[in-house]
Amino acid sequence: MGKYLVTGAAGFIGGAVAELLINRGDSVVTIDNLSTGMRERIPKGVDFIEGDAGSPKVIRKLNGIRFDAIIHLAGQSSGEVSFENPVYDLQTNTQSTLLLLDYACRNDIHRFVYAGSMSVYGDQNPPLVTEDSDTVPKSFYAVGKLASEKYMRIYASEFGITCTALRFFNIYGVGQNLSNLKQGMASIYLAMAVRDHKIIVKGSPDRFRDFVYIDDAVSSVMAALERKNGFDFYNVSTKHRTRVEEVIRIICDGLPYSVTTEYVSGTQGDQFGIYGDNSKIRKELGWSPQVKFEEGMARMTEWAVERMAAERGM
Amino acid sequence: MGKYLVTGAAGFIGGAVAELLINRGDSVVTIDNLSTGMRERIPKGVDFIEGDAGSPKVIRKLNGIRFDAIIHLAGQSSGEVSFENPVYDLQTNTQSTLLLLDYACRNDIHRFVYAGSMSVYGDQNPPLVTEDSDTVPKSFYAVGKLASEKYMRIYASEFGITCTALRFFNIYGVGQNLSNLKQGMASIYLAMAVRDHKIIVKGSPDRFRDFVYIDDAVSSVMAALERKNGFDFYNVSTKHRTRVEEVIRIICDGLPYSVTTEYVSGTQGDQFGIYGDNSKIRKELGWSPQVKFEEGMARMTEWAVERMAAERGM
Repeated sequence: MGKYLVTGAAGFIGGAVAELLINRGDSVVTIDNLSTGMRERIPKGVDFIEGDAGSPKVIRKLNGIRFDAIIHLAGQSSGEVSFENPVYDLQTNTQSTLLLLDYACRNDIHRFVYAGSMSVYGDQNPPLVTEDSDTVPKSFYAVGKLASEKYMRIYASEFGITCTALRFFNIYGVGQNLSNLKQGMASIYLAMAVRDHKIIVKGSPDRFRDFVYIDDAVSSVMAALERKNGFDFYNVSTKHRTRVEEVIRIICDGLPYSVTTEYVSGTQGDQFGIYGDNSKIRKELGWSPQVKFEEGMARMTEWAVERMAAERGM
Repeated sequence: MGKYLVTGAAGFIGGAVAELLINRGDSVVTIDNLSTGMRERIPKGVDFIEGDAGSPKVIRKLNGIRFDAIIHLAGQSSGEVSFENPVYDLQTNTQSTLLLLDYACRNDIHRFVYAGSMSVYGDQNPPLVTEDSDTVPKSFYAVGKLASEKYMRIYASEFGITCTALRFFNIYGVGQNLSNLKQGMASIYLAMAVRDHKIIVKGSPDRFRDFVYIDDAVSSVMAALERKNGFDFYNVSTKHRTRVEEVIRIICDGLPYSVTTEYVSGTQGDQFGIYGDNSKIRKELGWSPQVKFEEGMARMTEWAVERMAAERGM
């Protein structure tokens, strides 16, 4: 059985990846600072080190364990928050990558998978991006994600670590943090709809996203673990766009009560919308998305309603 | 008269820029951690804050002074050293940029000039690069320099700060640190030739560089200060290439004794050679290089020989 370091297992994607690994019998260590993640999301059986993956002191607690791979999914994931504290964003998203790559080097670990982001593309015209598209980051968050990829390229060529960046588009689904209203369009709207019966939209109804269901995101990580050498990066996307208005309609259609919508001004560094070609990951890693947005959103809405009822003690 | 923050005034380029500003009657504050810079290089009249520009505590010592511009030239400048301590490199070169841009924002400062680097291009084929060439950083140093530029783009578009990155090619000349053998091809070879009468070359004699004399680098900073808005970046280059072998020949020709040369293996992340088209900076900033390499190297050699004699108390 394998041994993995999955950073950010108290988070949305990290928790789901750790769970899959534990369920198939692997052993998993995680580092998480619980800044946006929740302790109860960490699956049973995972060794938990509480702390920031961007801190050398925390990395030292790994004590030279030789993992089969490092899957680096920790890090604050809101472009909006990156404007409030750019330095924290740099430390949590970029310095952490450097420290973990350095740990891999020193401990004979040959695989590294990283949560990249579609935000590195910024706005593009036309809005369909391939991995060859220019990168024009609009938020500090996106700059740090891109720098991390470039560090990985060097660790691959100079130190022989197989490094893969998965440029996640909008990951959503069961398990997403419904109390974080600064990250994740689907979960933000859904949380407001279920909690307040009112959705406040920051920005235009015509913006759109390429939504990827959490199970598909997890399977992309598993596919990336199979890569054999060098550095590469992949869009994890469906090549479908869903407009803000449609997202809201789908959420409302799934709820047994009416929801009002209010539009206010947008957030700094927000992207209007891009969607991702996925031929590269289909061809090279054999990955393809399995869950359609309507289906994923239906599962997520059902889950959110149950959760809310439980919270309210009904 | 103007008021400027010039970070790194104990360093090679920073010292020269601060001197020019002081001589024309401006007031100058500097932050320098003296890690590779030398206290005696800081021109008289400059207010000196000792510390790292990557540290929030040090930035707080600026006490809200409203500078006409921030000229950020501090930072370790060796690709080789960046491999020894990638995290320090990220803090000194990139976190410092973020902190200073944030300071500019909060204190109503509208201009920011940054020491970028030709290293962001990595190796290119053909080796003549324009600002439109791809960026493929080969060292941690280069990744951090590129991330800084991307942060500047955001501060320009979101916060209205005029930001200019000068992608310096190989700056050399009188005043360069002859005891730092990890940065600056011309000064490294010259120092070895004058001190030991023996040059040890790490890497191929066929590698080449595009050398820019220090006075020309300083005038590019002055030209950048005149820019009026937005973010942009410029090659500071001569569009001439000089091979390692030629550099050594020119140095040896200027010395009254014979010098031996030994070739050993190269350093990590070293570039084979690129040279820079400079049409953009000529056209948009009216800058052009004035000092030919033979002339600049002659001045520098004379200076180095005198300095060495003085050091030896002759």
